Amino acid sequence: MTRFMDVHHNMQGITADQLLEAHRADLAVEGEEGVHFERAWADPESGTVYCLSEGPSAEAVQRVHERSGHKADEIHAVPLAV
Amino acid sequence: MTRFMDVHHNMQGITADQLLEAHRADLAVEGEEGVHFERAWADPESGTVYCLSEGPSAEAVQRVHERSGHKADEIHAVPLAV
Repeated sequence: MTRFMDVHHNMQGITADQLLEAHRADLAVEGEEGVHFERAWADPESGTVYCLSEGPSAEAVQRVHERSGHKADEIHAVPLAV
Repeated sequence: MTRFMDVHHNMQGITADQLLEAHRADLAVEGEEGVHFERAWADPESGTVYCLSEGPSAEAVQRVHERSGHKADEIHAVPLAV
């Protein structure tokens, strides 16, 4: 399992409810891909959302996001953390 | 206090020790700016580092990074989180 940080752009104006709804949509399907979404943070002004997850591959992380309707613009493995 | 996600580019090849050393350098001076760096994640391949912090302003977060020798390329307030 690898940790990933993925980034969504063009989410200007996202609300707390929308972020929570999107996160719950990921949680609902993530198990089938062996992925777990841990946390997410959003900047409504620049329209940037960051999602922290663990999973077998970047492709598996992207499949979860695609199935829940919000494909990521960038996915980076982040094997180092403090 | 606001939560911030900042991003550093061009950090290709960063090691776990270097990430820890940079984080500790931030911790050593953050108090004077009223900032606290919580976590950081690094992708040595793309050279991307993400830092999660809390502080009074993006400028205060940047001053900590500048004083510890690694200015951030982007700083986003992330008032929304799950």
